[in-house]
Amino acid sequence: MNLILLDPAELDATGHAWLRDPRRLRHLREVHRATPGDELTLGIVDGAMGRGRLLHLDEAGARFAIERLDQPPPAALPVHLVLALPRPRMLARSLEHVTALGVKQITLLHTRRVEKSYWQSPELGAAKVREHLILGLEQARDTRLPQVTLEKHFKPFVEDRLPALLTGRRGLLAHPGMPAPCPRGIDDDSVLLIGPEGGLIPYEVERLLGAGCEGIHLGERILRVETAVTALLARLF
Amino acid sequence: MNLILLDPAELDATGHAWLRDPRRLRHLREVHRATPGDELTLGIVDGAMGRGRLLHLDEAGARFAIERLDQPPPAALPVHLVLALPRPRMLARSLEHVTALGVKQITLLHTRRVEKSYWQSPELGAAKVREHLILGLEQARDTRLPQVTLEKHFKPFVEDRLPALLTGRRGLLAHPGMPAPCPRGIDDDSVLLIGPEGGLIPYEVERLLGAGCEGIHLGERILRVETAVTALLARLF
Repeated sequence: MNLILLDPAELDATGHAWLRDPRRLRHLREVHRATPGDELTLGIVDGAMGRGRLLHLDEAGARFAIERLDQPPPAALPVHLVLALPRPRMLARSLEHVTALGVKQITLLHTRRVEKSYWQSPELGAAKVREHLILGLEQARDTRLPQVTLEKHFKPFVEDRLPALLTGRRGLLAHPGMPAPCPRGIDDDSVLLIGPEGGLIPYEVERLLGAGCEGIHLGERILRVETAVTALLARLF
Repeated sequence: MNLILLDPAELDATGHAWLRDPRRLRHLREVHRATPGDELTLGIVDGAMGRGRLLHLDEAGARFAIERLDQPPPAALPVHLVLALPRPRMLARSLEHVTALGVKQITLLHTRRVEKSYWQSPELGAAKVREHLILGLEQARDTRLPQVTLEKHFKPFVEDRLPALLTGRRGLLAHPGMPAPCPRGIDDDSVLLIGPEGGLIPYEVERLLGAGCEGIHLGERILRVETAVTALLARLF
């Protein structure tokens, strides 16, 4: 937690912020070892970042005086990530990684080799997803929450939504065996598509290339989704 | 498990391989849904890769006929990774990520902000470490086990071992606030040094720069060690 990310509802009219959730209170006590008078980095969800002074901390809550809120959050990556829905534990970690790296648009997509049961996972609940996004923002010192969209059917996504997503953007399909190595250091507005653990099936690859995506690869090593997504984003941008 | 990685002791004189451990047997049954007659990708620890045919599979064991072992493992990354010892769970995952990415030399280093208790973690036992390296190799289809060295004291490492490590290699110290952005797509033999969750202290940064390392950064976002290490390797090589 390199930033205390405040919900606007946690601010009162006097410029004070109240934290009451056990997770952050524990972190303040045990990791920051914070005591009243300490100045800490704060931010408002979807707003600015700055500094606050801890006025009070006990088991029930922490109160901060906002000293200033004058810094913009760091730049976002110019990418919309389309990720075949990973298994629940991998999803949780992948959301944290990509949020920390600065992704702001995430589509979770069904493909043939995504287990249907993954769509029933409690990890996909809005509150759970938000938890992982918040952890990613707190880690990276960012305030802007990514938007997460669920696409439970491949065909309507490819036919109805992908063409609009690709308008004015560079489509990149990361898939083993594609002809081009992953480009380095681009600054194009992009859509990056990544298949599931078992890979995309040939029909899916064909449809995505047909929609205008470039096929790219990371070499002959087969990486777990959470490793691949971090490696791709770090190499591309 | 994209490769069945065989210990030389699992081969018999007739060119057959016997697997008896529950983890891989379960994976063969439940994920591969393997049945006798199937051909699978095999490799020998620190040796070649090839194909084997499953002859027999039950609760107690699997027997393969090695069909051929004629492929070299994928190229290694030209880097010796020096990582401040992460907390145990992060260590386990980081070992898997970096092994999958092709790192072959790993030094785990004590620095001021590494909790002393981490050195007592069962995750640091040779068998546990080997387990994570094997998982990384199985994932990436590689056979060559990384070497892991423990350096429990910072000063003797910097003074006595680092100069030799840096001979003929490019030293890269990844640390927030360093002057140069992380270079992209290099092919120099390198030593990459990464600090702990709480960061290196100024004295440590000074000593490492003094030993000849270039200071590099990944931007203003603060990343978890396991995200940072993957991002750095993917951007550098």
